[in-house]
Amino acid sequence: MAVSESLAKPVNALFIPVVSVIGVGLIGGSFARALKNGGHVGRVLGVGRDQASLEKALHLGLIDRIATLQEAASESDLILIATPASVLGRMCAQMKPLLKPGAIITDACSTKVQVIEAAREALGGCIGQFVPGHPIAGSDESGPAAADPLLFWNRNVILTPLPDNKPADIERARQCWQACGALVREIAALEHDRIFAAVSHFPHYLSALYMSIASQSDSAGIALDLAGTGFRDFTRIAGGSPEMWRDIFISNKEAMLHEIDVFLLGLQRTRKMIENSDADGLHAWLDQAAMARKQWGENK
Amino acid sequence: MAVSESLAKPVNALFIPVVSVIGVGLIGGSFARALKNGGHVGRVLGVGRDQASLEKALHLGLIDRIATLQEAASESDLILIATPASVLGRMCAQMKPLLKPGAIITDACSTKVQVIEAAREALGGCIGQFVPGHPIAGSDESGPAAADPLLFWNRNVILTPLPDNKPADIERARQCWQACGALVREIAALEHDRIFAAVSHFPHYLSALYMSIASQSDSAGIALDLAGTGFRDFTRIAGGSPEMWRDIFISNKEAMLHEIDVFLLGLQRTRKMIENSDADGLHAWLDQAAMARKQWGENK
Repeated sequence: MAVSESLAKPVNALFIPVVSVIGVGLIGGSFARALKNGGHVGRVLGVGRDQASLEKALHLGLIDRIATLQEAASESDLILIATPASVLGRMCAQMKPLLKPGAIITDACSTKVQVIEAAREALGGCIGQFVPGHPIAGSDESGPAAADPLLFWNRNVILTPLPDNKPADIERARQCWQACGALVREIAALEHDRIFAAVSHFPHYLSALYMSIASQSDSAGIALDLAGTGFRDFTRIAGGSPEMWRDIFISNKEAMLHEIDVFLLGLQRTRKMIENSDADGLHAWLDQAAMARKQWGENK
Repeated sequence: MAVSESLAKPVNALFIPVVSVIGVGLIGGSFARALKNGGHVGRVLGVGRDQASLEKALHLGLIDRIATLQEAASESDLILIATPASVLGRMCAQMKPLLKPGAIITDACSTKVQVIEAAREALGGCIGQFVPGHPIAGSDESGPAAADPLLFWNRNVILTPLPDNKPADIERARQCWQACGALVREIAALEHDRIFAAVSHFPHYLSALYMSIASQSDSAGIALDLAGTGFRDFTRIAGGSPEMWRDIFISNKEAMLHEIDVFLLGLQRTRKMIENSDADGLHAWLDQAAMARKQWGENK
């Protein structure tokens, strides 16, 4: 488990002439805004399939120009791909022939192993220019209007560098995120995916599965009407983008299946406790969970 | 599905000379405070096993006197049992020989079928004096210091009256909760238990099971360190009282087992989607869940 961490520090020396953001939503827009506010970038190009979002981003000053993928590829010194994981390979393939030699591509996808495979296939000999990343930040809101220069402030950003990366390129990606106020860590891609399956993807899966069952039961009408604050918090994440989460589940398949299988065993074990009215067993289980949750909350 | 609802309305005429609260914590303390603030009660007696809590409640003015269970039984016009479900039967049995003829007992337990069975066994011919209730209100905090006269304001309180109850006694229980600002509904006990298994007890079960697994995995240290706001909200309810939830799971066993079994089927179905990289199936499922969650949020 190789993990390194460095605290946010001023990176005044960082200046990148041209940055492109592919997918100018919450993440891409916040990244652009933070770099611009800090004076770390000469010009930001915005690329996307939704013209209205791009115009909004332009209007808000998150980007300086709406560009095509080709323009972004040929003009940029740093490119952030902030799209669903399933399109990253295609973006890379289209940009590859046009990339400037010293340019780096990074991304904001929540899974890394399959994203790296897709990038490797698309970029071939240029794979060294791809420094994979994952900012651990989000919001209930989405789109460029939700962009916030402080979104990454004091939040973790994980880099999962490749053996093909030049140390200086990894350092540049790190500095960009540090310039956004983030705490940057490096973790191996496989370990990253297992960790985030456990603490992010699988909770989302459970919440969505629960929500879909609860909302389609025979007594859903009155039941949802009587649901309270526990229900509210437990299901909040189920409201997330179906497209993004579909891609995450598929691209982190192995780790997701592992989480599901471990949970299934726990479900069978605790189901038996309830069936047998095993008060001691239930208490021990619930007590451990409650203590762990309280301890976690105190450390945050 | 017999449901009736009535909006909160002023109940100026309500006055109960002596109210006892057994278990002066968040729920019992808030009930006492709301009735006292509204001038609806002459004297409140507090009963409990934790002397420090009782003294705190006395100091805060939630109760006027610390009493024994026997004193409460013989002096009260209304008794609220706000303890874990597993001790309600014992409380009723000890109070039965001393109860004033016109007094009513109500409760705040989250399950009703088994609580009613326990009360029926304990109270025998006096069962008509027990009007079962369930206030749908809570807080992360507990104990008398967390008592809040507005805890029940605009919140649902469910009554699950018995055929043995006098209409006037049901009405009195209703008026007490309305005096706390609550919206009072009547639902059959069995339906109540099924509904709350679905929207409250089962989410708690999932959250606690998830938390216990996540906190005991090999990579729990770094994983919990990287967990974000989704994890925070999803696991918040897992911090609840192990004793209370143990009792809820056991006393609502049938409905809980049903929820677990339906969820198991959903788990197997969606696991297969992930295994098969079934993008359309996953999108349809996640989209339905996200839409249902958004719709629910808008109606709240």
